[in-house]
Amino acid sequence: MGRISYIDNMQEWRSEFSFFIPVKIRFSETDMFGHVNNVSPFIYFEEARIEFLKASGLFDNQSDAAMPIVADLQCDYHKQIYFNENLTLYVKVDHVGNTSLDVHYMALNEDEHLCLTGRGRMVYINPETGKPAPLSDSIKERLADNIERKKPTS
Amino acid sequence: MGRISYIDNMQEWRSEFSFFIPVKIRFSETDMFGHVNNVSPFIYFEEARIEFLKASGLFDNQSDAAMPIVADLQCDYHKQIYFNENLTLYVKVDHVGNTSLDVHYMALNEDEHLCLTGRGRMVYINPETGKPAPLSDSIKERLADNIERKKPTS
Amino acid sequence: MGRISYIDNMQEWRSEFSFFIPVKIRFSETDMFGHVNNVSPFIYFEEARIEFLKASGLFDNQSDAAMPIVADLQCDYHKQIYFNENLTLYVKVDHVGNTSLDVHYMALNEDEHLCLTGRGRMVYINPETGKPAPLSDSIKERLADNIERKKPTS
Amino acid sequence: MGRISYIDNMQEWRSEFSFFIPVKIRFSETDMFGHVNNVSPFIYFEEARIEFLKASGLFDNQSDAAMPIVADLQCDYHKQIYFNENLTLYVKVDHVGNTSLDVHYMALNEDEHLCLTGRGRMVYINPETGKPAPLSDSIKERLADNIERKKPTS
Repeated sequence: MGRISYIDNMQEWRSEFSFFIPVKIRFSETDMFGHVNNVSPFIYFEEARIEFLKASGLFDNQSDAAMPIVADLQCDYHKQIYFNENLTLYVKVDHVGNTSLDVHYMALNEDEHLCLTGRGRMVYINPETGKPAPLSDSIKERLADNIERKKPTS
Repeated sequence: MGRISYIDNMQEWRSEFSFFIPVKIRFSETDMFGHVNNVSPFIYFEEARIEFLKASGLFDNQSDAAMPIVADLQCDYHKQIYFNENLTLYVKVDHVGNTSLDVHYMALNEDEHLCLTGRGRMVYINPETGKPAPLSDSIKERLADNIERKKPTS
Repeated sequence: MGRISYIDNMQEWRSEFSFFIPVKIRFSETDMFGHVNNVSPFIYFEEARIEFLKASGLFDNQSDAAMPIVADLQCDYHKQIYFNENLTLYVKVDHVGNTSLDVHYMALNEDEHLCLTGRGRMVYINPETGKPAPLSDSIKERLADNIERKKPTS
Repeated sequence: MGRISYIDNMQEWRSEFSFFIPVKIRFSETDMFGHVNNVSPFIYFEEARIEFLKASGLFDNQSDAAMPIVADLQCDYHKQIYFNENLTLYVKVDHVGNTSLDVHYMALNEDEHLCLTGRGRMVYINPETGKPAPLSDSIKERLADNIERKKPTS
């Protein structure tokens, strides 16, 4: 595998994750090539993203006038995944902009081998106009906390 | 395969279908056993049921106070299905009750071999109370038309 | 809901389960009606069935000349299921025949309300001929153990 | 939406597609947000990619010692997609390397509005060693034909 555009330094990038969920692979998520289908990692990314937003108090947050939508998603397949494997899927916020944030993903198998990396941008929009809406200060604070937490203590 | 509870006479039962949709099998609907996953037929049943309801003017029918929900579903697997096959999925209304109807399904492959049979009951409920609601006369008429049409002309 | 053909006495039927798995609902398993899609329970049944077979030493059992395939599946929807719910999915072997077994399913939500019941027959076939093959004595013993265990101790 | 890394000139990029498949959205591919789930486009990309490879004689090509695997995938969501929409999904080969090729995707709705763009790299590997394997001349020729064809005749 070559360089991945969203990872400058793999060692550093990997060390910045702290939030994770376990992923149980479902049989229906395999395909006739005998491994986990290429579509399935995006199911896992979605599950991990939602759990992360919930844990950060940013899912189902009705008090905010803006709702997040997924603007793009990408996944790099580093290692084939098989039915009996248990994955640990890590999530972090990589960057917070004015109306959007970048979420990064990493899946390790039980031997801590890198199976998947990925990222995707979420944009906050005004549900009535459909236009991008600035992130509220409370959202920014919660996300800043998260970014802060992930820095290695030195 | 033994007797199937919802089919008295296979020849007759099979001849009563007229509505159908083509089903294109998606690669992600296969599994590591190399065939179409056992869950996938229910995806196809759902697609066929909705197309049938649309064609009968019974989907997104806002003027009626009752909405249909699926009460049960079943599928018999007669023949393994593989990725490259093209299925024809037939749907018919088998029986119309006071608050529910029974929908039957049959999938044939390109050689007209029987791959799947199935059925499921849909119940009309009052969206506000969640209780079963009588089928309106207009719905009953549309369904009666459908049952009428499927009888062999002799 | 009316009588369910595979349940004689609900109280008794329900008490006979002991094996279960937790089911985490994935966001992609919901649909535009706002609840868990009608197809998704069959994903959960499959996952539970495989975990049950693994726990019974009957999955990936290469020493036996017969492999199990799903002959039919059915599901009764007792209560709508939503994204945030955690289900407990129970599995039991209801009946062991000469070449097949009947597997029953039950899903409860966190309030122990019945959400789903279901069943399906698995047939053991000879992989070379595709014909039904008698269950080996070792499989029958393992399954008999399971059926024995589920009986209430009195 | 900002600039997309894999599209230099949208007008030109868009004009280079010629191969396409129709995509019928399945009800189970929607989610509780009322639209097509963010995972589903990758199902459609996979279907389109396989149809494209088949049409180019590059799927199930047993004579070649190398098999293609997906190295990465990405999708940009330009416009929400709903259940009743019919998509046209375009595929093209953007670049052919020594051991890999880059496949691009574009989905338009019935009004020819851009709903999705995407790309992904496929790497040919030696199935025995798992290492990247050079594309055979016959594969390169077939792909070159495809790239040639897509150039606007002027």
